[in-house]
Amino acid sequence: MAQFQSFDASTSPSQGPERIAKLRAEMARRGFAGFIVPRADEHQGEYVPKNADRLAWLTGFTGSAGTAIILQDKAALIVDGRYTIQAAEQVDTSVITPVQLADKSAEDWIADNLPAGSTLAYDPWLHTSDGLKRLEKAVARAGGKLAPVDINLIDVIWIDRPAPPQAPVRPHPLDYAGETAESKLKRIRKKMAEEKIDAVVISDPHNLAWTFNLRGADVGHTPLPLGYAIIPKEGRADLFFDPAKITNEAGAAVGDLAQFSNMTAFQTSLDKVGRSGGTVRIDSATGAVALIRRIEAAGGTVDVGPDPISLMKAVKNSAEIAGSHAAHLRDGVAMARFLAWLDAEAPKGGLTEIDAVEKLEAFRVDTGALKNVSFPSISGAGPNAALPHYRVSRESNLPIEKNQIFLIDSGAQYEDGTTDVTRTIIVGEPTAEMKDRFTRVLQGHIAIARAVFPKGTTGAQIDAFARKPLWEAGLDFDHGTGHGIGSYLSVHEGPQRIAKVGHTPLEAGMMLSNEPGFYKTGAYGIRIENLILVEPRTIPGGDREMFGFETLTFSPIDLRLVETSLMTADEIVWLNDYHAQVREKIAPRLEGEAKAWLENATRPIG
Amino acid sequence: MAQFQSFDASTSPSQGPERIAKLRAEMARRGFAGFIVPRADEHQGEYVPKNADRLAWLTGFTGSAGTAIILQDKAALIVDGRYTIQAAEQVDTSVITPVQLADKSAEDWIADNLPAGSTLAYDPWLHTSDGLKRLEKAVARAGGKLAPVDINLIDVIWIDRPAPPQAPVRPHPLDYAGETAESKLKRIRKKMAEEKIDAVVISDPHNLAWTFNLRGADVGHTPLPLGYAIIPKEGRADLFFDPAKITNEAGAAVGDLAQFSNMTAFQTSLDKVGRSGGTVRIDSATGAVALIRRIEAAGGTVDVGPDPISLMKAVKNSAEIAGSHAAHLRDGVAMARFLAWLDAEAPKGGLTEIDAVEKLEAFRVDTGALKNVSFPSISGAGPNAALPHYRVSRESNLPIEKNQIFLIDSGAQYEDGTTDVTRTIIVGEPTAEMKDRFTRVLQGHIAIARAVFPKGTTGAQIDAFARKPLWEAGLDFDHGTGHGIGSYLSVHEGPQRIAKVGHTPLEAGMMLSNEPGFYKTGAYGIRIENLILVEPRTIPGGDREMFGFETLTFSPIDLRLVETSLMTADEIVWLNDYHAQVREKIAPRLEGEAKAWLENATRPIG
Repeated sequence: MAQFQSFDASTSPSQGPERIAKLRAEMARRGFAGFIVPRADEHQGEYVPKNADRLAWLTGFTGSAGTAIILQDKAALIVDGRYTIQAAEQVDTSVITPVQLADKSAEDWIADNLPAGSTLAYDPWLHTSDGLKRLEKAVARAGGKLAPVDINLIDVIWIDRPAPPQAPVRPHPLDYAGETAESKLKRIRKKMAEEKIDAVVISDPHNLAWTFNLRGADVGHTPLPLGYAIIPKEGRADLFFDPAKITNEAGAAVGDLAQFSNMTAFQTSLDKVGRSGGTVRIDSATGAVALIRRIEAAGGTVDVGPDPISLMKAVKNSAEIAGSHAAHLRDGVAMARFLAWLDAEAPKGGLTEIDAVEKLEAFRVDTGALKNVSFPSISGAGPNAALPHYRVSRESNLPIEKNQIFLIDSGAQYEDGTTDVTRTIIVGEPTAEMKDRFTRVLQGHIAIARAVFPKGTTGAQIDAFARKPLWEAGLDFDHGTGHGIGSYLSVHEGPQRIAKVGHTPLEAGMMLSNEPGFYKTGAYGIRIENLILVEPRTIPGGDREMFGFETLTFSPIDLRLVETSLMTADEIVWLNDYHAQVREKIAPRLEGEAKAWLENATRPIG
Repeated sequence: MAQFQSFDASTSPSQGPERIAKLRAEMARRGFAGFIVPRADEHQGEYVPKNADRLAWLTGFTGSAGTAIILQDKAALIVDGRYTIQAAEQVDTSVITPVQLADKSAEDWIADNLPAGSTLAYDPWLHTSDGLKRLEKAVARAGGKLAPVDINLIDVIWIDRPAPPQAPVRPHPLDYAGETAESKLKRIRKKMAEEKIDAVVISDPHNLAWTFNLRGADVGHTPLPLGYAIIPKEGRADLFFDPAKITNEAGAAVGDLAQFSNMTAFQTSLDKVGRSGGTVRIDSATGAVALIRRIEAAGGTVDVGPDPISLMKAVKNSAEIAGSHAAHLRDGVAMARFLAWLDAEAPKGGLTEIDAVEKLEAFRVDTGALKNVSFPSISGAGPNAALPHYRVSRESNLPIEKNQIFLIDSGAQYEDGTTDVTRTIIVGEPTAEMKDRFTRVLQGHIAIARAVFPKGTTGAQIDAFARKPLWEAGLDFDHGTGHGIGSYLSVHEGPQRIAKVGHTPLEAGMMLSNEPGFYKTGAYGIRIENLILVEPRTIPGGDREMFGFETLTFSPIDLRLVETSLMTADEIVWLNDYHAQVREKIAPRLEGEAKAWLENATRPIG
C-alpha cells in the first residue's frame, strides 16, 4: 500500500449543487452577482492545504489548476486541456459547466456572462496584481463592477472547514542547506539595496523556507511551512507562523535573525511597514492584492516585482549539489530495483498501474531516507501513457499489458535532495513506429544533455533542440522540455525553465528537468526525463563564457525501444557513455538479479 | 558615384556647444532642469526626415538609435554598443558625455543625475506609452517631476530647420500590392470587431502605406509617405498628409475609401474620435503619448496595443511573393556581376570599400528597375568587417586587401520587392580559422534554411539553430538571426523576427532574413544572409500543421571559405542544391565572364 499517495476519490459531484446554492444565497445577501473561486491559495501554491482547497470543496474538481465563476443563474469551471475529461467527471454539469481554457479564458467568460451593471466579488488574498488587472479588464468589458470581500464567501458557508495545517517547522540542516540564513539575508539585502527596496514581503513559502533554512509539512509532497515573512533592509526580520508550529529547534536555529509572530500580527506589521513610508517589494508571482492594498493604505509605496529570493534559491550551492548527487545515487538504486522487478513481472501479466506505483514507492522506502514522494506518480499503461499529466485512480487503473508501452514519472523527497525521473518501458515487443518515436524523443533528450551555450542564454532559446527530431517527422509535444527543481523543496521551482516561456538566463548551479516526450492519443505515450545541472564549460579556442549540463539522474533508458539506425555516431556515444556511468555508479549498490538486470540494461550498443 | 548613399559627414562636433547652450537658455526660461532628446521622430521610425533629426542637429551624433539628456550642468548621450566609437567621434565630449547603454540606460542616468525636486521636460510626440512609463519611474527615483512641452524645445531654437518632406504620394500598383485597399480595410475592420475596437489611429507610416496601397519618399531608403490615418469601424477613413504631397493618381486610387485632410485637421479629428466615446487603439510600438492624451482629454477610451495592420502586412500575398521572386532574380544578376567583378579586380589591389559600394549600386542601376538602395550598404574590409553595423565613410574607407575577408551587406528597393543580401568573400587565401568560422556560420544558416517547425512556433524558438555550430566552438554573434522585411517597404519590418525576442508565431507568407554571423574584433567578420519565406510543409506520417522556409535570394556562397570536412552530408546536399538553383536561375541572365564566373562559383562540392 502506498504511504504517500492515494488512488481514491476525495470529492463527489453530488456535493456541488447544495454548496453552490448556499454560495448564491450568501452572494445575494451581500448584493453580489458573482463570485470567483480560483484554485490558488493565499500563496499561489501548486499544492494547497485542505482548508484552502475551496475549489474542490465547492465543485468537486481536484485538478491542480482551474477557476470557477459562480453567477446567480449560471456557473463555469475553466480548466486547461489536461483536465477537460477530469472536470466533466468530477463536477455536476447540471449546475456548473466545464469550459476549456483554449476556447474561453475565465476573463472572456466573465466579459460574456456577467450582467452589465452588476458586481463580481473576489477574495483579494487569492489574486495577484497581474491577475487582478486581467479581471478588471474583463469586468469592464462586461460593463460590471469588481468588489473585494473581507472574508472569502466559501469560508462563510464551509461549516466543517478543516483547521489550517499545523505541521511542525523544523530546521533544515546546514550540511544540506550549505549556507546560513545569516549569509542568505546578507545577500538578499545587498540585492534590495541595488534595487532600492526598503523591505520585502515574502509571500512564497518556498522562499521563506530557503532563506531561513526551515522545512515543514503543511502541504502534500513539498516540505513547506506555510507562513509569511517581512525582511526590512536592516534589523530583525519577522516570521509569521501559527506559534504552535514552531519547534524549539527551529526557534534556536533562527535565533536573532528574526522574531516569530502569529498571523494576527502580520496584518499590523504590514501597516507598520506601510507607515514607514519606504518602498516595499511584493512578489509579482505570489503576492496577493490584499498585501498591496494594506501597505498602500498605510502610506507605503509598493513595488510589484520578482521576489529577489527566487533567483538566489534557483542557483544551488556546492552542499546542495553534493546532496543532490547523493540523493540521485540512492534514488537510482530504487529505480533499478523497480525496473528489474517490472521487467521480470510485467510480461507474466496481471500487474496494474497502481501495483507499479506501490512497488516503486516501496523500493524508495527501502532506501531508509524517503521523506515523501515529490508528487503523485504518473503511472500510465498503453493509452493512459498518452496523457502527460495522468494520475492513476482506482477507476482509471489499467493493467500493464504485453506489447504495450508503460510510462512512469515519479520522484522522491530526501532531506539531501529532490528527485524526478521518467522512464518509458516496452513490455514485450515494440512496433516500428514506437521505436521511431522513442528514438526521436531520446535524440531530443540527448540534444539538451549535450547542449553548450553562452552565459545569458535562456531556456526558451534551447527548448527547440529537444523538439527538432520530432519536428522533422511532423510531430511535437505540448509541454515544456524542463522545469526547475528545488533542493528538498518543490519538484517544480522557478524561475528557470526550458520552455517557450522560459526567459530566465540559465546560470551555473541551476537544476532543471530534461523531459521531452511524444503522445499518441488512445495508443501510447513516451517521455524520457533526467534531472540536469547547469555547469561552466571551457571550450578551447572559444571566446565566450559557456555553460553546459551535467546529468544527475542515473537510470537505464530502455534499449529495446532504440532504433540505432536513426541516431548519429555522437548520439550513440552519449547513450553508451551515459549507460556506462549508470552501471559504474549504481551496479555496486545492487545485488543478485537486479544487478544482473542493470548490467544487461546498460550494455553498449551501436 | 553612388546615387543613393553618401560617404560624407553631415554633422560636426563643433556645432554642439552653441546649440546646447541655446537649449539650456530655453529650458531655463521655462523652468526646466532637463530636456530629453530621443532619436525617434513622431512615428518612431528607423529613418527620420531631416526636420525631425533633432538629436543629430543638437549633438552631431548621426547613429540610428540614441538618446540625449540635457541638464543645466551636464549632458549625456546614451548609445548602444555598436555606436560607442561613432558617438565619441561625432560629439564634443567637453559638453556631452557618451554613455554606453550596457553600462547605464537613459532611465538610470536620469535617476542618478536629475536634481531632486526639479523638472525634466519631454516632447509627448516623441515617446510611446511604454517609453513614458519608464521615464516616469526614472524621474520618480530621482525625486523629480516630468513635464510635457507644447512645442519641442529644439524646434524653438533650430532657426534654419528644414521644412517637413514633401515627396509626392503615389499609388502602389495592384499588380504588386496584390490586394485592394478596400479588401484590406474590410479585414482590418473584422479584426477591430473581434478586439472590440471602435477606431484605430495609424501612427506607423508603413501601415498607412500598406493599407491604402500608397508609397512616398519622405525618408531615406524606404518609400514612406509620412502621415497619419484614423480608421473608424465604419464609414470613410481619414488620411492626414500635407495636401501638397497628394498626387492626382493617389487621390483617384484611394477614391471613396478615405478623405484626405491636412495635419491641422488631425488634432481636431482626434478630439472628435475621443468625443465619440468609443475605444480607440493606439499602436504600442509607434503611437505617441500625445495621441493618447488628446483622445483621453476629449473623453475617449484608449486601448494601447499592437496596430492590427502590422501582422497583416507581415504576411505576404501571392502577388507580393511573385514580386519578390522577380526582384530577387533581378537582384541576383546584379550581385553575380558584382561578385565576378570583385573576384577579378580585388586581387590586383587598389579597390576600397567605397569602390565596392559604388560598383554594386551601379550593377543594380543597370537592372533599370532600381528605386533606391534599401539601406546604406555595409561594406567592410578586414577589421571593418568585424563591425556588424559598420557604415563606410570617407574617413573609415579601407582598401580591400589580399588574404583578408571582405563583407558586403546591401539591398535594393524595386517596385515589386525589397531585397537584402550579405556575402563574405575571401580575397586571396583564407586562414584555417577563417574557414572554420565561415563554415560554422554557414551551418547555422543552413540549419535555419532547412528548419521545419509546427504552426505557432516563434522566431525566438528557432534562433539558436543558427548559433549551435558556433556555440559548440565557444563562439556566438551579438545580433538577431533574422528580421522581417517589407514588400517595397522597410528592409526592417516587424513583428516577425528570428531572435531571442522574436515572440510572434511564424506564419506562411512571412518574409525574413537568415543572417548568422561571426565577428573577430580587429581582424575579420563573417555574415551570410539570404531572405527566406515561410511556407506550409506536408510531412508524411506527421500529425501537426508544419512550416518551413523557401530561400528567396540567389547568390553564390564563397566556396573557398567552406571547410567541407566540418559539414554533414545533409548540409553539403543543401549547399550543392542551393548553388544548382542559383546557376539555373541566374546564369541564363548573364553573359561572358560573369556567366563563366557564376558557373564556377556554383560548382558542386563534397
